[in-house]
Amino acid sequence: MECKVIKIGGALIEDGELQNRLCRKFASMSSPFVIVHGGGTFAGQLSERLGIPRKMIDGRRVTDRETLEVTVMVYSGWINKTLVARLQALGVNACGLSGCDLNLVQADRREGRDIDWGYVGDVRQVNMGALELLLQAGVIPVVAPITHDGKGVLLNSNADGIAAAVAETLGRCYDVELIYCFDKKGVLADVGNEDSVISCLTPSLYEEYKGNGVIHSGMIPKLDNAFKSVHNGVRVVRLIHPDDLDQPNAGTRIILEK
Amino acid sequence: MECKVIKIGGALIEDGELQNRLCRKFASMSSPFVIVHGGGTFAGQLSERLGIPRKMIDGRRVTDRETLEVTVMVYSGWINKTLVARLQALGVNACGLSGCDLNLVQADRREGRDIDWGYVGDVRQVNMGALELLLQAGVIPVVAPITHDGKGVLLNSNADGIAAAVAETLGRCYDVELIYCFDKKGVLADVGNEDSVISCLTPSLYEEYKGNGVIHSGMIPKLDNAFKSVHNGVRVVRLIHPDDLDQPNAGTRIILEK
Repeated sequence: MECKVIKIGGALIEDGELQNRLCRKFASMSSPFVIVHGGGTFAGQLSERLGIPRKMIDGRRVTDRETLEVTVMVYSGWINKTLVARLQALGVNACGLSGCDLNLVQADRREGRDIDWGYVGDVRQVNMGALELLLQAGVIPVVAPITHDGKGVLLNSNADGIAAAVAETLGRCYDVELIYCFDKKGVLADVGNEDSVISCLTPSLYEEYKGNGVIHSGMIPKLDNAFKSVHNGVRVVRLIHPDDLDQPNAGTRIILEK
Repeated sequence: MECKVIKIGGALIEDGELQNRLCRKFASMSSPFVIVHGGGTFAGQLSERLGIPRKMIDGRRVTDRETLEVTVMVYSGWINKTLVARLQALGVNACGLSGCDLNLVQADRREGRDIDWGYVGDVRQVNMGALELLLQAGVIPVVAPITHDGKGVLLNSNADGIAAAVAETLGRCYDVELIYCFDKKGVLADVGNEDSVISCLTPSLYEEYKGNGVIHSGMIPKLDNAFKSVHNGVRVVRLIHPDDLDQPNAGTRIILEK
């Protein structure tokens, strides 16, 4: 049985009109799917309005107690519920979930050597039984990037990481396609040319593109993670523009072999 | 089959220690149950910090767009998820839900004659199928007082009203006990004496107590609603102190006949 895991973030979270268009695409999809959403910039804006100082170490944000509260309120609260209400209005039986709900995603609090990252969690495990309960009932899980440690503490986790962990877990029983929606039409061979989408990447092609400098910098960690997922049982990872969500051959497909 | 619907609010939402004690009681319960929680004073505090003016008409709060955002963030976000994480830590397989999730609670936007109450909703219907899906899987639904209109709009609804509607809906298939936790040991015959709990109220006893002035003012709408629920298929409504949640005979029982 097929199942899609679709990660959305950025402007799709912030722009109501874009989100409505995306939700209509979701409403036209037939196979079961799971949505994982990011947080956009709304949490940062709210922190600023509340005068909560932004703490950064080595360019990474520290989630102190006050920032965790804001993050949970925005991600699990406003963003998750407005998205679910929109989907329900279009006839999609969505259920918004954070990692604590049904014990869906447990995470380990991140340990730095001498750095306290605060309430940040790296995904430890995804509850297959919880996903199956919902998917078998025709429910579309809509997952916020908030996890828990299993001891009563909520944690802020990376949405890409949650999407990957959900896809890899589902890969044990389903034929899984993991889709990252982003602002390009796919991985571009020429960043200046939107029509230069690389349609397919295998491990050997990836090495080639990295070797000749076509793929570089910010795309590398994203693609490394994508290859990790296909190595861990996800059939295909796709990087696409959300407008192409209903185009089966759009974007860049990341697979193990042709 | 028995099922309890338990409404909690006030200090149980705000006081972490009290909430932990309550969660341990939930963890010791055997029959299936649904928790409906209120919002406490946290949303009002957040609105104040954000400088959102409090709009009141005839002593009732108007929920404008900004207030709705705060309410959804606090109720569906922070309060709902911290409660669920605590329950999960104690082995209770809780799932936090707002009315939009699984289309659990639809509401009608409240129409005043010349008054715009904003994003306030009166419960229209509760989705029995959603409750059954979760209860049959051994899941404990934890419901926030946020509903939706089915057209993509979230609404702020009264938690007591949601608890009653959930209990009445479950009453079609389950033997339902609806429990309102509050700060007294039950309905008191003498407000100054905590030991004067009226153990049982039937419609005729209620009329008697109202007639001789023992029951008056604020208790009357609460008890009217309780009687409405027993008339609508709930076996018994109980008003108890949360510390007595595991005492089968504690508090005031509201029933149709002895």
